[in-house]
Amino acid sequence: VSRGETIGLGPGGEFDAIRRMVDGWGARAQGIGDDAAVLQAIGDSSLVVSTDTSVEGVHFRREWLSPQEIGYRATAAALSDLAAMGAKPVGLLSVIALPEHWLKELDEIAVGIGEAASLCETPIIGGDLSRASELSITITVIGTASRPLLRSGARPGDLVYVTGSLGGPFAALRDFEAGREPSSEHRARFATPTPRIREAQWLSANGASAAIDISDGLAADARHIAAASGVCVQIDAGSVPIVPGITAAEAVRSGEEYELLITAPEELDANEFERLFSVAITRIGRVLEGNPTVELTLGGETLQAQEGYLHFQNERR
Amino acid sequence: VSRGETIGLGPGGEFDAIRRMVDGWGARAQGIGDDAAVLQAIGDSSLVVSTDTSVEGVHFRREWLSPQEIGYRATAAALSDLAAMGAKPVGLLSVIALPEHWLKELDEIAVGIGEAASLCETPIIGGDLSRASELSITITVIGTASRPLLRSGARPGDLVYVTGSLGGPFAALRDFEAGREPSSEHRARFATPTPRIREAQWLSANGASAAIDISDGLAADARHIAAASGVCVQIDAGSVPIVPGITAAEAVRSGEEYELLITAPEELDANEFERLFSVAITRIGRVLEGNPTVELTLGGETLQAQEGYLHFQNERR
Repeated sequence: VSRGETIGLGPGGEFDAIRRMVDGWGARAQGIGDDAAVLQAIGDSSLVVSTDTSVEGVHFRREWLSPQEIGYRATAAALSDLAAMGAKPVGLLSVIALPEHWLKELDEIAVGIGEAASLCETPIIGGDLSRASELSITITVIGTASRPLLRSGARPGDLVYVTGSLGGPFAALRDFEAGREPSSEHRARFATPTPRIREAQWLSANGASAAIDISDGLAADARHIAAASGVCVQIDAGSVPIVPGITAAEAVRSGEEYELLITAPEELDANEFERLFSVAITRIGRVLEGNPTVELTLGGETLQAQEGYLHFQNERR
Repeated sequence: VSRGETIGLGPGGEFDAIRRMVDGWGARAQGIGDDAAVLQAIGDSSLVVSTDTSVEGVHFRREWLSPQEIGYRATAAALSDLAAMGAKPVGLLSVIALPEHWLKELDEIAVGIGEAASLCETPIIGGDLSRASELSITITVIGTASRPLLRSGARPGDLVYVTGSLGGPFAALRDFEAGREPSSEHRARFATPTPRIREAQWLSANGASAAIDISDGLAADARHIAAASGVCVQIDAGSVPIVPGITAAEAVRSGEEYELLITAPEELDANEFERLFSVAITRIGRVLEGNPTVELTLGGETLQAQEGYLHFQNERR
């Protein structure tokens, strides 16, 4: 008996579609079929919750991504917010609103959502489905953390780190917008980013003081940490690892990276980190007392941190 | 210092709009400004989570409701799912996607969201804001329950109850669709429904075996209980309390009521319920062994439970 047949919904087209999605999700879908999901008690941990929406024409274009990638990417973006908090996911809810002409792609979208859920070992515990005049996917993620990593935890004297290499989504968007197919490396960084869930838990356990996931661009997200912590964040753009075909000045403006920007009072063990997660962690700056701003330098010169960054969502505005 | 100024977001139009919304929500907004919300540990209770989306032209029309009512109604609909589980809300997240021409109404929409949150004593703990080509509001609600009320709990021999009076939203939609202004009573039942949060907690504590909120219509939602519990639900439509100007056959098809349909093994104290909550609870049927269907009768005759119910969302499909 498939799970879809066992969840006890009445007849109707919407319920058929939900049943089909739940069938596809298999064991990743848990406790669906009631008005709300029920999670077991979580003991002494804090509960961490976030919601993130992806809208066609605002966050992505249909020509750029397969339906499966659209589902994956929307879900990975939401899960990345849990990573930014050092939280362990315990469940996600997916809301899909879509027009008639997207209906035949619904199953593929659901496959992508399921892939991201699998990657982060997160059960899908609920959702909603609605008609709309454009496709949008809203993912709510729930996690637990014994010591959540906040944006407000950076202190003068802390070191600043970034995971991975930046610039891939910038390069992919530049090519997409110019009507060119991006390189497979750039495209993959845009289409199928990896939420740094396990990495963030290690960082939280190893003394990180603040974290944010890079969704608006390194410079812009560093400003969020500076504002929340009331500190000056100094970053040497020249030390930021970048993907091929991108300059450092471009990489710090690249949004939707879903890498982590971290502060820590002590040096982190970069070798151990890379050995465990096969991804680099690189020291790129430090935290100073002063106005809550970002000082971004490249080869000793000041970069304009306030300048616009390339971010499809914001390009559309 | 307003909360909006204290939440530590960087500069930018989206962040300004979020700050404004958070200011308007005042103390009802909690812990906003990080990647995810952090809730305190919840001890031994189960966590109950649900998400619900309202799309312009699908769930409501702009001509029918004020922006404040649109925000209120979307939030009340989501909170009603917690009521259906007998859960106590602990937080909600609101995602608003909207086109340029809705921007000037955003603050009013937020007021409506805040009103529903206040009514149900629920902090707003996060959300997202995006451009879109049509207005949609997605509300995720989180609650706790020591004994969640499931759809699957109905047993042969149970009695069936409904809260309040049905038919208001049906009458309001009928008038709206015909271009007439509904009566104020009908309009209020459609525009500003009350989630039965406290009522549901009383029902859970007083032995209710299953519950669902009436969003698809009494007959359709009874089928969900029948399917989930594997029982036959027998309902006498003639005993269902209805608003003036509506027939019993119409009332059982009226969707988006957000009243509760409950089963209970023993008689509930209707007088005590009405005294506590100023709303009626009425016995309307019973649960039998048999095929998981609904037997709906009116004056001894069988009503076609399978027939379409009036529900704006489904009318559009």
